[in-house]
Amino acid sequence: MSERIWTAGLVVIGDEILSGRTQDKNVAQIALWLNVQGIRLSEVRVVPDVQDRIVEAVNAIRTGYDYCFTTGGIGPTHDDITVDAIAAALGVDVVIHPKARAALASYYETRGGLTDARLRMARVPDGADLIPNRMSGAPGIRVGNVFILAGVPNITAGMLDALTGTLEGGRPVVSGTIGCWVAESEIADLLGAVEKAHSGVAIGSYPFFREGRTGANFVVRATDQAVVDACIADLTSKLEATGRDVVAGGI
Amino acid sequence: MSERIWTAGLVVIGDEILSGRTQDKNVAQIALWLNVQGIRLSEVRVVPDVQDRIVEAVNAIRTGYDYCFTTGGIGPTHDDITVDAIAAALGVDVVIHPKARAALASYYETRGGLTDARLRMARVPDGADLIPNRMSGAPGIRVGNVFILAGVPNITAGMLDALTGTLEGGRPVVSGTIGCWVAESEIADLLGAVEKAHSGVAIGSYPFFREGRTGANFVVRATDQAVVDACIADLTSKLEATGRDVVAGGI
Repeated sequence: MSERIWTAGLVVIGDEILSGRTQDKNVAQIALWLNVQGIRLSEVRVVPDVQDRIVEAVNAIRTGYDYCFTTGGIGPTHDDITVDAIAAALGVDVVIHPKARAALASYYETRGGLTDARLRMARVPDGADLIPNRMSGAPGIRVGNVFILAGVPNITAGMLDALTGTLEGGRPVVSGTIGCWVAESEIADLLGAVEKAHSGVAIGSYPFFREGRTGANFVVRATDQAVVDACIADLTSKLEATGRDVVAGGI
Repeated sequence: MSERIWTAGLVVIGDEILSGRTQDKNVAQIALWLNVQGIRLSEVRVVPDVQDRIVEAVNAIRTGYDYCFTTGGIGPTHDDITVDAIAAALGVDVVIHPKARAALASYYETRGGLTDARLRMARVPDGADLIPNRMSGAPGIRVGNVFILAGVPNITAGMLDALTGTLEGGRPVVSGTIGCWVAESEIADLLGAVEKAHSGVAIGSYPFFREGRTGANFVVRATDQAVVDACIADLTSKLEATGRDVVAGGI
């Protein structure tokens, strides 16, 4: 298994996210899926439905990371400009993909036929492959290291499912969590010392306020389960030594 | 009222968002709050808890838009590096803010006193003002056009509340929504034509699949309510002319 760290960035294309109208769900689902593939989500950019802004973000992400994913803007309407923007970013033409046309013709055979608007969804940057979409008409698109996915989260999920196991990755990050009813400010030094003592781990501290009480969850991440387990055990015993109860798995 | 469009970008600082562990809620709440202030959220970047990456994103956003907001990384633990990163981005020192120190001393008077770890939360980029935090110890920070907010959404909300009405903005974007049980591909041309016929509007088309049926909501945005209303009326009558029922307010 490779020790190289594989990275990805995500460009979320959508006025509806930037307006606050829609709560994004794709960042979390793509992050979790990527981790299973051994790929680390390293940056997300949310940009409006404006070609220049999409081009700029896609070029930054596709050249900065191993993989570039995008969500949104691949439907049949006037605000669906993702394919044109990515073709422009790559400096290639937009062409009709014959398999996409065939898939759409089949999908719409019993749904009123393949109109010009629907045929828009068969347009791809030249040189692209399709990512199957079992839920609706418009396929996802792979072109080079750019993966163009749907914006509707359950359609995105189906496309991720179709991509599972097809991307080269490294070792997935594994994690362990413990929780404690403690203000993180009381144990900040302890936490920093434990992180330093365990090579290769990162400890995240996530405070919360519930039922009038202060608590925090501590998430230990590394690429080796034994390293995570040893760090969790050490952190647990050091917190318990301060007289506090520790909740395995988090609160 | 100014017709200039005021813009903001947001840098979400957080390994927990990029790992998929935590579902971000700040993008939507900041977007909605900004719109009420007459400021348009125009870009979001999510970056890991790594100083260089925060510096790069903050510099891009603070120079590219009127305002730069950040969320996350202002607590007392080792992974809270936002203040240091933003001071580095601005090329200024990190100093202890006397009012922040006093606020923390008061907050922790009955909670075990002001330790070194807690005093970390009084550190600000030189020249900064504080943003009140009524929920917990660490204040938010304003330095130039950069607004450093908490990552925990209900604390972020309190800081936004404290900032309400203090930022110069323009005319808020207003919107209207209608829904229709229709595949967006069937009315794509109609939609594009209606958008073109109404100057200053943007129509977003948001398809969904529910109970085995295909539908879409259409959101009309503009800075003038009369323009939105006229466009909604036109779109409604054109959709009804195709024999479809339109649901005011969306489905």
